[in-house]
Amino acid sequence: MNPRLIAVGVGPGDPELITLKGARLIGEADVVVCPIGDRSDSSVAATIVDGLIDPARQQVIRQVYPMRKDPAEMEASWQASAAEVAALVQSGKTVAFVTIGDPFLYSTFLYLYRILGESYPDVAVQVVPGISSINAAAAAADCPLGLASDRIAILPATFEEEGLRQTLADFDTVILMKVHRVFGKVRSLLAELGLVKGAVYVRRVGLEGEAVFNDIDAVAEEDLDYLSLVIISKARAEL
Amino acid sequence: MNPRLIAVGVGPGDPELITLKGARLIGEADVVVCPIGDRSDSSVAATIVDGLIDPARQQVIRQVYPMRKDPAEMEASWQASAAEVAALVQSGKTVAFVTIGDPFLYSTFLYLYRILGESYPDVAVQVVPGISSINAAAAAADCPLGLASDRIAILPATFEEEGLRQTLADFDTVILMKVHRVFGKVRSLLAELGLVKGAVYVRRVGLEGEAVFNDIDAVAEEDLDYLSLVIISKARAEL
Repeated sequence: MNPRLIAVGVGPGDPELITLKGARLIGEADVVVCPIGDRSDSSVAATIVDGLIDPARQQVIRQVYPMRKDPAEMEASWQASAAEVAALVQSGKTVAFVTIGDPFLYSTFLYLYRILGESYPDVAVQVVPGISSINAAAAAADCPLGLASDRIAILPATFEEEGLRQTLADFDTVILMKVHRVFGKVRSLLAELGLVKGAVYVRRVGLEGEAVFNDIDAVAEEDLDYLSLVIISKARAEL
Repeated sequence: MNPRLIAVGVGPGDPELITLKGARLIGEADVVVCPIGDRSDSSVAATIVDGLIDPARQQVIRQVYPMRKDPAEMEASWQASAAEVAALVQSGKTVAFVTIGDPFLYSTFLYLYRILGESYPDVAVQVVPGISSINAAAAAADCPLGLASDRIAILPATFEEEGLRQTLADFDTVILMKVHRVFGKVRSLLAELGLVKGAVYVRRVGLEGEAVFNDIDAVAEEDLDYLSLVIISKARAEL
């Protein structure tokens, strides 16, 4: 293989939801880099990778990224990671960087990707798509995302109420990511708009503690989690 | 395995972009159903499946769905398919139904799913998510879909110009599906809004004839295809 960085999306957490291509390229790489956060769930990528590598032949590097630190510290972590990865590729190694979900959709890989583009443009990067938590949550919740001419919006947690109201008016399906901090406000707005029946809350899809709440009114404070999303489907509201 | 219908998303076309789980469940099923359209690309699912099944042990059913027919004919095709699938499951078989991309995202499987829910509620359905053409196109085009707090919209081809203008104002990334019929209008609007540099046209990702056009002004009439999309990324426009 040509020396390069391969970003492999390993899917939402179920080790079987990696693609054949992702599994093959991890198995063929000289070095496998696992980013590890300081949350318990962040070793999921490492667990998936452990089943795919040959420790006798492959080097595994676990890079720790503490979360909830200040932006400058995070940036320094990613700069160090980029430098380490770039040096490996420049020395002729093929490096697989594993990331939960899809590398190009709300992935922390994107920080590394930006720095490589800015500071190490000679490092070739290949991206292997992965199953995102959105597609996995839809399957787990038995909730189609969109059919034929449906319009779909994906919003991060930091939405304004007015913006969310407009998006709920304009789109057939709305996915709210990392909804735990604004869950109460979202539920009130959905109640006002008559969309409670169209909403489903999916917590930690593919991970330990996975749960689907078809009735968002039944979600208690302790059911909320950082890795959670809400799908609001107008088709589901009309069932 | 319990008798059931398993909808397996096999990804955008590259046989390696199926998940390990999808490949395993196709291999374990009693019956594998491949929907085949009358377009040349629609046998992709069948090609992927051919590499996974054991014809000595498994039954393969190719269901033909001619496209571009009138809605009543299409509905009759799906009704017949649902009846056939339901009868197999009711007789104790586990049936894998393969579908390109993800079963819950703009998939024709959703027609079958609706009919099963309406007319055969006793048939258990399991959905195995697949890589959608959106994630695969982003990887092929080297174009991240969204980072951290980015807002993402996915629109089908049938958008109004004013609606598209508003969506382009409100969202960081916009994915226009099946854009071939409105390509000229889209290009004019993007030029007016200064977003041409942020747009990439991806044709037939994962299929024969795959192409990425980083300059949408270079897309000629003959480059357009039914299986095509445009990603418009404001982050890309600012690079």
